[in-house]
Amino acid sequence: PRTKLPRVGTTIFAVMSQLAAEHGAVNLGQGFPDFDIPPRLVDALARAMLDGLNQYAPMTGLPSLRKAIADKTERCYGYRPDPDAEITVTSGASEAILDAIHAVVRPGDEVIVLDPCYDCYEPAIELAGGVPVHVPLDPRTFAPDWDLIRRAVTPKTRMLMTNTPHNPSGAMFDADDIRQLTGLLRGTDIFLLSDEVYEHIVYDGRRHESALRYPELRERAFVVSSFGKTYHCTGWKVGYCVAPPALSAEFRKVHQYNTFCTFTPAQAAFAEMIEAEPEHYEQLGEFYQPRRDRFREQLLTTKLKPLPVPGGYFQLVDYSDVSDLDAAAFCRWLTVEHGVVAIPLSPFYGTPPQGQRLARLCFAKNEATLDAAIERLARL
Amino acid sequence: PRTKLPRVGTTIFAVMSQLAAEHGAVNLGQGFPDFDIPPRLVDALARAMLDGLNQYAPMTGLPSLRKAIADKTERCYGYRPDPDAEITVTSGASEAILDAIHAVVRPGDEVIVLDPCYDCYEPAIELAGGVPVHVPLDPRTFAPDWDLIRRAVTPKTRMLMTNTPHNPSGAMFDADDIRQLTGLLRGTDIFLLSDEVYEHIVYDGRRHESALRYPELRERAFVVSSFGKTYHCTGWKVGYCVAPPALSAEFRKVHQYNTFCTFTPAQAAFAEMIEAEPEHYEQLGEFYQPRRDRFREQLLTTKLKPLPVPGGYFQLVDYSDVSDLDAAAFCRWLTVEHGVVAIPLSPFYGTPPQGQRLARLCFAKNEATLDAAIERLARL
Ligand SMILES: CSCCC(=O)C(=O)O
Ligand SMILES: CSCCC(=O)C(=O)O
Repeated sequence: PRTKLPRVGTTIFAVMSQLAAEHGAVNLGQGFPDFDIPPRLVDALARAMLDGLNQYAPMTGLPSLRKAIADKTERCYGYRPDPDAEITVTSGASEAILDAIHAVVRPGDEVIVLDPCYDCYEPAIELAGGVPVHVPLDPRTFAPDWDLIRRAVTPKTRMLMTNTPHNPSGAMFDADDIRQLTGLLRGTDIFLLSDEVYEHIVYDGRRHESALRYPELRERAFVVSSFGKTYHCTGWKVGYCVAPPALSAEFRKVHQYNTFCTFTPAQAAFAEMIEAEPEHYEQLGEFYQPRRDRFREQLLTTKLKPLPVPGGYFQLVDYSDVSDLDAAAFCRWLTVEHGVVAIPLSPFYGTPPQGQRLARLCFAKNEATLDAAIERLARL
Repeated sequence: PRTKLPRVGTTIFAVMSQLAAEHGAVNLGQGFPDFDIPPRLVDALARAMLDGLNQYAPMTGLPSLRKAIADKTERCYGYRPDPDAEITVTSGASEAILDAIHAVVRPGDEVIVLDPCYDCYEPAIELAGGVPVHVPLDPRTFAPDWDLIRRAVTPKTRMLMTNTPHNPSGAMFDADDIRQLTGLLRGTDIFLLSDEVYEHIVYDGRRHESALRYPELRERAFVVSSFGKTYHCTGWKVGYCVAPPALSAEFRKVHQYNTFCTFTPAQAAFAEMIEAEPEHYEQLGEFYQPRRDRFREQLLTTKLKPLPVPGGYFQLVDYSDVSDLDAAAFCRWLTVEHGVVAIPLSPFYGTPPQGQRLARLCFAKNEATLDAAIERLARL
């Protein structure tokens, strides 16, 4: 009787990482890189500590970091958010997502999510008393069906959550998606929560369609990103939210009573890194593309069928030639019997599509790790 | 119409720190030390980064840190929580407070808070849909009136929040308070949220009455603490929650979708520091006591009247011989006209008591800072 959240289990990422450790499996599950982080970041953080930057940062984030985010946003998307009124630094993108939802979603409000979606969206909505409304993406291409989304809108719709490049599929919005999205939101008072944490990991010359590029979108958007994916340091947990002044004000009301601020020396380090080495984030796609291509080539020698990866660092594979298990059972079996951890897609769905035989592998790993995984997967 | 939280403003700490910066005032407002942090912490953090501990920590916290917390808890309070089932590391105590409330408080549930209380309690309760029920502490001694608290209990009471040593007053629970609290909770299903972030800053041989000492309390308690106050690094934002397995399970359901984990290298650094130098936290009261005493002596030369400080690093002063302004107006005036920032007590109250003329000064500062403040306060 005491359980408020009876339907919530442990996140699939914690479950599979735990299972990986127990079975000594190659962990391509939880999304984290095993590359070295940029040396400048380590240096800058150590310097910040020695300089005494060890007390609370301003609740909105260190001024130097907010300025760097404004500079980077302008450089990348042609729009310069006001560092004081529009940018708030958080303890990772996940805190930012929870804060944005809590800032505007009232009990009974509906929030449209596009399935599959990152597993924190639904519980964050429910904790705020909101009602998640699940609309499926195409189960193979993960493209949005804008008519379907439009039909899910009701007078109670308070927010629409999008994610490009998309976790788990890597699918990316294109200019037409932006047109459709803009048309759908025009004249409504629906907020947009745009999760863009993989913004710099894009391939084949594609362009990341940040909501910040578009005045009609950004006037109603909480745009969330973070540095963990961009700087190979998912454990540093510095994220941020860009939103218009009135929305940032609401966002900060929650953030200030949640974590208030985040690890100060890392904020200083990211500020320096962003300004001093813009080529790092500009060239991140080029860094990852050969890794993506190599991993795909290797997978083609196994019975797993790789799907296209437009962005992000996850490779979906169709395992239907190997097993008829559902994805959760398959991934458990793969870990225990074959020593490779993958993430099933089912936890990313309200209702997983019948018969979908897809698992997610993270290729943000050095060659030795990926080779070890492929060696095991080749035995399937 | 879009504002969900119309009554929430910016936290008094951010407001006053901002005002301090604008007026070049000596900032004794927001509670943060300006001492150097222990050298071992800086070294250990730098080593952790170089050792590659830069990816997500386990959602529950680094095993080494959870073990260190268990060791320290046993050493201090004679009870060893299970690191796997009962300890969860968070992004500061404030995240832990929000998570604990969200884990068990349902819409309409009542949560009793004892005024004055830390300013994040009420908004966290309201974000969860709960109803804060304010019960005043004695406006001069800040002792709880247990009869008054008992009368505030209704069938809807879901949680009672306590805080010892107390912010802003420094008051501490004694053995009798624990008896009263235990009697009050016995036979109910009310949860206890015990905020103990100042646990190691206690004076004059007093004993910190952690809820973890008492089986009847800890079986229903979320005990929250952090390292910011203990290790002079409020900007490092590593906190934790100790709760029985069933409550920790609920707590983690929220934490995993809020921040998921916190800055990994700092977790490793605290683990090392706690185990290697237990004398640091054991002797923290002795470190602060001469500072408290010296500041009190200095204040006695001014027109401000210092109240007793049993614990914590805040000094309340009665300013009624100086001004008849209410506390908020007085603190603003003190900053603008006299260049010293204090925190008014009013934001710590649901309804501030009429005619209370108290302000809070933080004395976790080096002598030069305190001397500069006293020089200005002497002119009042
Ligand atoms: C916070 S653990 C999950 C990491 C991640 O973003 C993913 O694997 O999808
Ligand atoms: C998070 S800012 C407030 C710091 C603090 O604990 C206090 O000043 O009471």
